[in-house]
Amino acid sequence: MKTEQRIEELGLTLPPPPNPVGNFIRTVKTGNLLFVSGHGPYNDGITKTSGKVGRELTVEEGYQAARSTALNCLASVRKAIGDLDEIKRVVKLLGMVNCTEDFKDSPKVINGCSDLLVEIFGEEGRHARSAVGMQALPNQIPVEIEMILELK
Amino acid sequence: MKTEQRIEELGLTLPPPPNPVGNFIRTVKTGNLLFVSGHGPYNDGITKTSGKVGRELTVEEGYQAARSTALNCLASVRKAIGDLDEIKRVVKLLGMVNCTEDFKDSPKVINGCSDLLVEIFGEEGRHARSAVGMQALPNQIPVEIEMILELK
Amino acid sequence: MKTEQRIEELGLTLPPPPNPVGNFIRTVKTGNLLFVSGHGPYNDGITKTSGKVGRELTVEEGYQAARSTALNCLASVRKAIGDLDEIKRVVKLLGMVNCTEDFKDSPKVINGCSDLLVEIFGEEGRHARSAVGMQALPNQIPVEIEMILELK
Repeated sequence: MKTEQRIEELGLTLPPPPNPVGNFIRTVKTGNLLFVSGHGPYNDGITKTSGKVGRELTVEEGYQAARSTALNCLASVRKAIGDLDEIKRVVKLLGMVNCTEDFKDSPKVINGCSDLLVEIFGEEGRHARSAVGMQALPNQIPVEIEMILELK
Repeated sequence: MKTEQRIEELGLTLPPPPNPVGNFIRTVKTGNLLFVSGHGPYNDGITKTSGKVGRELTVEEGYQAARSTALNCLASVRKAIGDLDEIKRVVKLLGMVNCTEDFKDSPKVINGCSDLLVEIFGEEGRHARSAVGMQALPNQIPVEIEMILELK
Repeated sequence: MKTEQRIEELGLTLPPPPNPVGNFIRTVKTGNLLFVSGHGPYNDGITKTSGKVGRELTVEEGYQAARSTALNCLASVRKAIGDLDEIKRVVKLLGMVNCTEDFKDSPKVINGCSDLLVEIFGEEGRHARSAVGMQALPNQIPVEIEMILELK
């Protein structure tokens, strides 16, 4: 439970795991890789969960949405594998930002997720990634992130 | 040939496997994972194979295009591995919908693929996924889907 | 050093590996797979490193940017694994083209990367891929490509 203690130390709480919107499941394990479905931010009444970054949301609000998305992913992972300490390392993110056509700062937005993963997991939280700008996301969420994790 | 019988029971037929449009191959196997290139819908004279969902296509037409895309992927997989019964499970989809900027329903479109995979493979057809909205797809196809499968 | 000799024979040079723009690392190895972060073209003063294909860049300029992106990826891979001969094969690309809404030719652009990988690695350079059109990329680079490689 070391990982959950760390999340608590950071003053954070895992939200209830989201129900997939569509005919898919949150995670699939194959070998020692865990593929985590694309997640969006959770609704805490503070994080903006709808709109385009560069139009309805600022980069800072997008960053916060990406941070919230990271916790949402981890909530799904905990439900799937029981104990977050089973995560050996974060391998890869695909970070997608719902944004305007000339938006340049998708990396700054997705850093909200990347920074949190490093705060929680340290060196094992450091990952390969792409952070890119999207035409549209489901229900116009501002950020969607999918992950590949390596399990112990 | 159980999988192909199931496809037949559903009243469906695998199309001829598409020729890649570009310098790439349909699938690559590494370990027991099969990475399937992005595929689009096949041309049966009914499915709309060009245009944006939310502009030239309705959500229902997009759903049908995603369903057709699933069969196109499986046609490529059969050509690569010989027998679809070698598939242990569907691991992950990246479902991309060519759509308008404020489109909200990419999950409903990609369900066309997800639903069919579950109809064919049952529990082993259930997968992690992202279903997102794209600025543009090759030749303006409405849907492109790439898959990761686990083989036996 | 066979691979680097081949790169030299082609009249090419690996650029210095780029510094990630954001809190992530260039590559992560898990099992015998190497996940390579999304890379863009490098700045050689000739390749256009900013703008949308179909607006500021032609398809041919996009192709050149994708070719440059391939070398940038390989520079990161060399830094990570020391010797490019450790690459067994290229498994998968996600090729993303920053483009206009009705752009049709993302495969022709990403061929710049695919063609070069085949020139360098021969049959082992042939890969699964998706080549798609994006709303926006970091700093408005015209092309971003992420790779999965299999190592020996």
